[in-house]
Amino acid sequence: MSSSGTAPAYRRLTVDQRRTQLISAALGLFAHNPPEDVSLDDVASTAGVSRPLVYRYFPGGKQQLYEAALRSAADELEQCFAESQTGPLTSRLARALDRYLAFVDGHDAGFMALLQGGSVVQTSRTHAIVDEVRRTAADQILFHLGFRTEAAPHGPGEDGSAPQGHQAGPRLRMTVSTWITVVEAASLIWLDEEKQPPVGELRDWLLDHFVALLMASATRDAETAGIVRRALDLEERDGPVGELARRMLPVVTDKVHLL
Amino acid sequence: MSSSGTAPAYRRLTVDQRRTQLISAALGLFAHNPPEDVSLDDVASTAGVSRPLVYRYFPGGKQQLYEAALRSAADELEQCFAESQTGPLTSRLARALDRYLAFVDGHDAGFMALLQGGSVVQTSRTHAIVDEVRRTAADQILFHLGFRTEAAPHGPGEDGSAPQGHQAGPRLRMTVSTWITVVEAASLIWLDEEKQPPVGELRDWLLDHFVALLMASATRDAETAGIVRRALDLEERDGPVGELARRMLPVVTDKVHLL
Repeated sequence: MSSSGTAPAYRRLTVDQRRTQLISAALGLFAHNPPEDVSLDDVASTAGVSRPLVYRYFPGGKQQLYEAALRSAADELEQCFAESQTGPLTSRLARALDRYLAFVDGHDAGFMALLQGGSVVQTSRTHAIVDEVRRTAADQILFHLGFRTEAAPHGPGEDGSAPQGHQAGPRLRMTVSTWITVVEAASLIWLDEEKQPPVGELRDWLLDHFVALLMASATRDAETAGIVRRALDLEERDGPVGELARRMLPVVTDKVHLL
Repeated sequence: MSSSGTAPAYRRLTVDQRRTQLISAALGLFAHNPPEDVSLDDVASTAGVSRPLVYRYFPGGKQQLYEAALRSAADELEQCFAESQTGPLTSRLARALDRYLAFVDGHDAGFMALLQGGSVVQTSRTHAIVDEVRRTAADQILFHLGFRTEAAPHGPGEDGSAPQGHQAGPRLRMTVSTWITVVEAASLIWLDEEKQPPVGELRDWLLDHFVALLMASATRDAETAGIVRRALDLEERDGPVGELARRMLPVVTDKVHLL
């Protein structure tokens, strides 16, 4: 392996910088191509380095690079869920959803290949990474609803919006996990339908579904009902819940035989 | 390969009967064990035949047997969705859900391994089979909502409950597909939580979610609103929608700042 033809910039990178550069090149390729269509040569030439250098950093080859790229994407995705604890819950969720959908938009092919499965490079380790992202998303939502989570073992702070600090019950956890699945499924359908409807409409529709699922669960579960009632106090008349409620009226208004 | 030790019953089976017997043995094994733990020897000994005989019927070995077993399970699952076109929509859906959840209950490990992915025997062909089951479920629901589908190109019959016979728009299709994902995800969580809550509660909760998702979509989509209004006319006061509406009231009743 000769370094005679390398540009100065080639050598100036530290080990960490080089590793980051290779992962970033791999992520770009995996994000826009199914994993089976990405070769180590592609990664090397995208990063402007030799194939042996890629192997020096990733002796496990494509599988190891894929996992490192996935790990990096998972870290980025988990950043989307961090949100301050102020204002109506639906506004917080809308901001997190905007960041999440921007990620989906920017990593479309890779996101699809990853979540749809069937890829040659999927293993129990890659599944564990995807599951961790889902769990982080669920934990963040439960935290904002006022619950203690693994990441925040003492529950939310002192701002009054979330006073409980114990663990959520099974029905509420199932509702939240289910909605996260809804978001994933809707994102895949959205990519499949060439990103229609516009992303803002998709976001509003997912917010509606969150409210609808939580409301439906609240009718059968006292804990969820308490959470919903406290969350509704924070909502504003012009916010998503108020709008949803007012849009619902004309649909059901003459169906009094059901009440 | 000697046939000296075989019982008379061994030879009496026709080719089709033998094939069916082997698939049924494989399905039983795949339903209760992760695919990687099932060997051809297991299938042979469960069916009471020799390993070479299994290979004669399935020269592709375990992969071919797995796909045949999956195909057979998919056919069985698709039967769950067939439902007559009478009565409130939620009653039809409840009956289909009962059959589906009974299938999940009876094929727990295999169902989980299949839908969670990551199995060594998963290929684009097995994914296509799973996708076909999802599409069949979606088509059945859209058919009952009054739409033309691939399986019923002229739409529903003359019984008046479903007078349209054109294709559903993208938002309604997305709502239905999303709910099917909810059912799958909730089924997996249910298996993971040792089949808690009781299956009847899970069924009612999934029905609530169907109504809630459809209602939320109806507020943004005229087509869905029309469908919901017609469906509500068929619902009974003591049915799931009436009960959901009455249970919803105490949760929201003093939140007038949102209306």
